Amino acid sequence: MKVTVFVSPKNTVLDPQGAAVEHAMKSLGHESVEGVRVGKTITFKMGGSDSPESREKLDKLCDGLLSNPVIEDYRYEIEEG
Amino acid sequence: MKVTVFVSPKNTVLDPQGAAVEHAMKSLGHESVEGVRVGKTITFKMGGSDSPESREKLDKLCDGLLSNPVIEDYRYEIEEG
Repeated sequence: MKVTVFVSPKNTVLDPQGAAVEHAMKSLGHESVEGVRVGKTITFKMGGSDSPESREKLDKLCDGLLSNPVIEDYRYEIEEG
Repeated sequence: MKVTVFVSPKNTVLDPQGAAVEHAMKSLGHESVEGVRVGKTITFKMGGSDSPESREKLDKLCDGLLSNPVIEDYRYEIEEG
């Protein structure tokens, strides 16, 4: 199965990278831009198929390695094949 | 409109961050993981609505600021409201 994990900073957490990008966009003339947040995506292939067991594994991976649950949220999409 | 830009390393480009994550996943016991790639997402709000003009603006933004077209690909999704 093909997995895409989306990790984003929690809404309540400051995102300095997003603030820097917003500043840069505004100085390039895109004044109407606001609320820029920068997150990451991790895509990979993994053995097995979409099942409660593999979702449990994925949750552990996301919580323990791919995101910092104190300041980040995650969600993932699974594509078979 | 709400815009989400997805930036990912081109398939032909080495992704050392992805390789590091893959190594970590494997040492945590997820041996079947392969082809890990790490990209980023940039979400923001912008004035105006989905139109050829705003897509042209967005293409310029993505090409010039949000991605490095030599080594990265991008795509974006636009949500009204």
